[in-house]
Amino acid sequence: MFSMLEFAKQAKQASVQTAILNEAQKNQALKDMAQALRDSTKKIVEENKKDLNAAKENQLSDAMIDRLMLNPERVEAMASAIEQIASFPDPVGEIRKRRVLDNGLDVAKMSIPLGVIAMVYEARPNVTADAAALCLKAGNAVILRGGKEALHSNLAIAAALHQALERNHINQGAISVVPDPDRKHMNEMLTLTDYIDLVIPRGGEGLIKFVTKNSQIPVIQHFKGVCHLYVDKHADVEKALKILLNGKVQRPGVCNSLETFIVHKDIAETFLPMAARALEDNDVKVHACKKSIGYFSNAEAATDEDYDKEYLALEIAVRQVDSFDQAIAHIQQFSSGHTEVIVSEDKQRAQAFIKNINSAVVMANASSRFSDGGELGLGAEIGISTSKLHAYGPMGVESLTTEKFVVIGEGQTRE
Amino acid sequence: MFSMLEFAKQAKQASVQTAILNEAQKNQALKDMAQALRDSTKKIVEENKKDLNAAKENQLSDAMIDRLMLNPERVEAMASAIEQIASFPDPVGEIRKRRVLDNGLDVAKMSIPLGVIAMVYEARPNVTADAAALCLKAGNAVILRGGKEALHSNLAIAAALHQALERNHINQGAISVVPDPDRKHMNEMLTLTDYIDLVIPRGGEGLIKFVTKNSQIPVIQHFKGVCHLYVDKHADVEKALKILLNGKVQRPGVCNSLETFIVHKDIAETFLPMAARALEDNDVKVHACKKSIGYFSNAEAATDEDYDKEYLALEIAVRQVDSFDQAIAHIQQFSSGHTEVIVSEDKQRAQAFIKNINSAVVMANASSRFSDGGELGLGAEIGISTSKLHAYGPMGVESLTTEKFVVIGEGQTRE
Repeated sequence: MFSMLEFAKQAKQASVQTAILNEAQKNQALKDMAQALRDSTKKIVEENKKDLNAAKENQLSDAMIDRLMLNPERVEAMASAIEQIASFPDPVGEIRKRRVLDNGLDVAKMSIPLGVIAMVYEARPNVTADAAALCLKAGNAVILRGGKEALHSNLAIAAALHQALERNHINQGAISVVPDPDRKHMNEMLTLTDYIDLVIPRGGEGLIKFVTKNSQIPVIQHFKGVCHLYVDKHADVEKALKILLNGKVQRPGVCNSLETFIVHKDIAETFLPMAARALEDNDVKVHACKKSIGYFSNAEAATDEDYDKEYLALEIAVRQVDSFDQAIAHIQQFSSGHTEVIVSEDKQRAQAFIKNINSAVVMANASSRFSDGGELGLGAEIGISTSKLHAYGPMGVESLTTEKFVVIGEGQTRE
Repeated sequence: MFSMLEFAKQAKQASVQTAILNEAQKNQALKDMAQALRDSTKKIVEENKKDLNAAKENQLSDAMIDRLMLNPERVEAMASAIEQIASFPDPVGEIRKRRVLDNGLDVAKMSIPLGVIAMVYEARPNVTADAAALCLKAGNAVILRGGKEALHSNLAIAAALHQALERNHINQGAISVVPDPDRKHMNEMLTLTDYIDLVIPRGGEGLIKFVTKNSQIPVIQHFKGVCHLYVDKHADVEKALKILLNGKVQRPGVCNSLETFIVHKDIAETFLPMAARALEDNDVKVHACKKSIGYFSNAEAATDEDYDKEYLALEIAVRQVDSFDQAIAHIQQFSSGHTEVIVSEDKQRAQAFIKNINSAVVMANASSRFSDGGELGLGAEIGISTSKLHAYGPMGVESLTTEKFVVIGEGQTRE
């Protein structure tokens, strides 16, 4: 019978080994993992069929079924993502803040793996390969608890990855898929503070809230992204328009798309007609405040609920403000802590915006769509944290590490 | 009637103001806080008497009453601790990892306050002043939930601190003592994820476990410190003896004192007689393994429970091992993740120890008693984290901050 406790203990034991693998060992294992996925394409696609058939029987939505589906191209994409992860610099063993104290002690911090990471996610089986590779790169063991709809796919992916671990003499507990989808095992997992160091939920708000509420292990959360654009009175309106459209229209279904734009009254007469035309041309539905609604041919009156909403669609809220401070206050009230942008040619005002807004990513004169691990140069992204502990904003593989103190003496004792 | 929700909302609102105070403003407020405590000495000592009388009526232990007691010297110590905190460098606003990407985006990370921090602690009223000062230094608001035994003292301290906030036009919500000791308010507090960013429990294991189990807000934990000393076969035995005695005898009641020492078999015949004599001279009770017990005149046989124990007293466990690897395995099995020390003149073995052991502080040839924020140059210590997220090991004021991304462009949009 499946025991979650034994399962977590095995991961913990494996993590002792993965923590001391050197860079070359980890990268060789990753390359072998990529190849093993390719070699197992047929088996993975077959097992995925079982999940797809069950999904159709259970009448899951087309979007859900699309997320679940694996074909040879998608398996190849997983494999090459792992190869890319292998090419990153090793996040473990870096020495930081080294100094010699007056008593001669040589003190530094060294980056080390977190230990055991549990991923809780929904229907996307590619998360299984991605998360396994990222965790191993950072020297961690990982416990993968995906949705039950994807269990056959996840187990087939893990079986392929295990072949590569075996070839590299790495404990199989380094990558493990929870084989029993019964929720009681997940609930137990979230209490195993002696064996698991971090839980990362990836998925809808319901899943994240459930994990946060029930976990005694630290959780990194990503709630919604209600990203704001503030068009300052000193804005270059052409830049502002480009950034507005890119933020709303290019890919509205993602968390770094814009949900609200705010415009300073002194530039409203110039900017709002341009914005209205462009948003209309792109079929964007508008919720506008009293002062701005007249510029739009077909806007609805905006409520506080509208300003609080993550539309994830061609839909945006608009607010005209009397001052810079009012713009800041609006953002502070409605921000989800994700990403906020000012467009202004006045550097002091841009700096004041950056100083006053403590969202995870604060930008001047650039599109919110750059708020992404890959775009900001972090390599592959584990997720975007909107909680402030440990990691805030886009998380690269470095966020799967922590730091220990290393102290070297010559026999010093304390007085 | 007291509302925890309103209380937390006020703290959150105050945190928006404290976050943008500059260094000079914060330091002036801190200096005024120190002076206000001095000016309120009489009132604070009077209010503390009420707590002391109640404590005696309720027959609290002498140790508890001593922790609770305030006199003019202790008030002065709180005041000068705040002045010391004022003298630290500002942990907020530091720019790190700045780089310009190929698309011209200027990307950096900037240290920012966490926001609102809740401290949950027991009988020591000096934590009220300390925590308030450290949180303000890092630009945070703080909610202080001390033990009900110290409520009069804590409210009197807060009243003094509020005078200083007022003089500096800082929102009173920046420092607030929960005025109602009913546990239901603490339980509610631990669910207020929209208003509180971090909970730090300080006190016994029961308190820390309670907070961890019930908090939906991230918690930084400090469980026990079971610190190990490993005397390698290449040890300088004089250094090893000094480090052993310093670690066990100098102040046995603290978490960075030694609880177990391990000795390599090749040096046991030299070292164990020296250690036995010195420990006996210092009245240290010994729990020894089968191989080492013969060296001690009055040792008990050590069990696994003994190796797992934080004695916090003149009591130590001893284990002789056949190899370096066995020493590592023992520490990995019984470590609490706090501090471990190797004594060896062989640099490679010292480095191997440092690589293999991922406790918060790993030392070579130095006393575990240096594992302390002040001793490691962090300034005042908020606590010692034995959980790996966000902070691991001794926490200085920097651990009350997080980092945001700052991105500056010239109108870039994403393809």
